[in-house]
Amino acid sequence: MLENVYILGIDPGSRKLGYAVLEISGIKPRYVECGTITAPLTAAVPERLREIGEGLEQLISEYPISEAAVENVFTAVNPKTALVLGQARGMAIYLLAKAGIAITSYNPNTIKKSVTGRGKAPKLQVRRSVSYLAGLTSEVAEDAADALAVAFCHSMHRKRLV
Amino acid sequence: MLENVYILGIDPGSRKLGYAVLEISGIKPRYVECGTITAPLTAAVPERLREIGEGLEQLISEYPISEAAVENVFTAVNPKTALVLGQARGMAIYLLAKAGIAITSYNPNTIKKSVTGRGKAPKLQVRRSVSYLAGLTSEVAEDAADALAVAFCHSMHRKRLV
Repeated sequence: MLENVYILGIDPGSRKLGYAVLEISGIKPRYVECGTITAPLTAAVPERLREIGEGLEQLISEYPISEAAVENVFTAVNPKTALVLGQARGMAIYLLAKAGIAITSYNPNTIKKSVTGRGKAPKLQVRRSVSYLAGLTSEVAEDAADALAVAFCHSMHRKRLV
Repeated sequence: MLENVYILGIDPGSRKLGYAVLEISGIKPRYVECGTITAPLTAAVPERLREIGEGLEQLISEYPISEAAVENVFTAVNPKTALVLGQARGMAIYLLAKAGIAITSYNPNTIKKSVTGRGKAPKLQVRRSVSYLAGLTSEVAEDAADALAVAFCHSMHRKRLV
C-alpha cells in the first residue's frame, strides 16, 4: 500500500512565517500550497505571535499534516536577533508539537543541497529550484520559498515506512 | 470600588518555567501561589515546549489572570542560548496573548530595585526579599523566586485604573 502523507515546511520569523504543504503519495512529493502568514508591522511582540500562531493553527487544521520540517538556525547571528527569532520559532514548534506533528530540523547546507545539488547555492538558485520542483510558473515569495525548500528537503530525507 | 486583579509573573526557560500568582485587592498584593513547571530532561525541544506550555495553560485556566509580567532578556548572552531561551519565551508569550492577558516586561535592574531597593542586588537577596514579601517561611526555588520578583515588580509599576 502506498503511503499518503502531508508534510509541512515552515520558515518562522518574528513578523512573518513562510509555509509550504506537500503531499507524498508514492515516491514523488506533490505540491499542495505555499504562502506567508504575516502580522501587522505596528503590532507588539505578543500580538504578532498571537496573529502568526492563529494563522498556523488554522493552516494545520486544514490538512492532515503528520510531519513538519524547519531549518536549523545558525548560531552566527547576534543574541538579540537570535532571541526574537527564537520566540517565533518556539511558538511554532509548540503548536506543531501540540498537534501531534513530528518535527525534524535540517542544516541550511543540507536544505540547499537537497533542492539545488549544491550546499552553497545562492538564494536565487534555491528560489528557482523550488519553483521548478513545485511546478509553479510564477515567482514564489522569499519566506514561502524557504519553507518550500525545507519541505522538499524533508520529503527526500524522511524515514519511509515501507 | 476596589480593584481585584490576578497577576502572573513568569520566568520562562527551556527546561522549566517559574511562575508566581498574586492577587491585588486594594493596594497590597496578596501572595497566592508560586512554583515551577518542569519538562523531562531527556525530552527533545518540541516535547519540552509542549509539556511546559500545557502546564502554563493549566495554570492560567485556574485563575482569572488579566496581567502578566516577564523579565527583559539581556542581549549579553550568546546567540545559541538566546535562541533556546527565546523559544521558551515565545511559547509562553503566545499562550498568554492568546488568553487575552496583557504582558509587560521589565529590565532586571528594575525588578531587583522593586523588591530589594537596589538595582544591583545579588540573587540571594532577591530570593530572601520575595519570600518576605510573599509571607513565606520556607525557601523558594530559584525560578519561582525570579517569577515572584517580576510579579511583585509589576504590582508596584502597573497602571492603576482608579
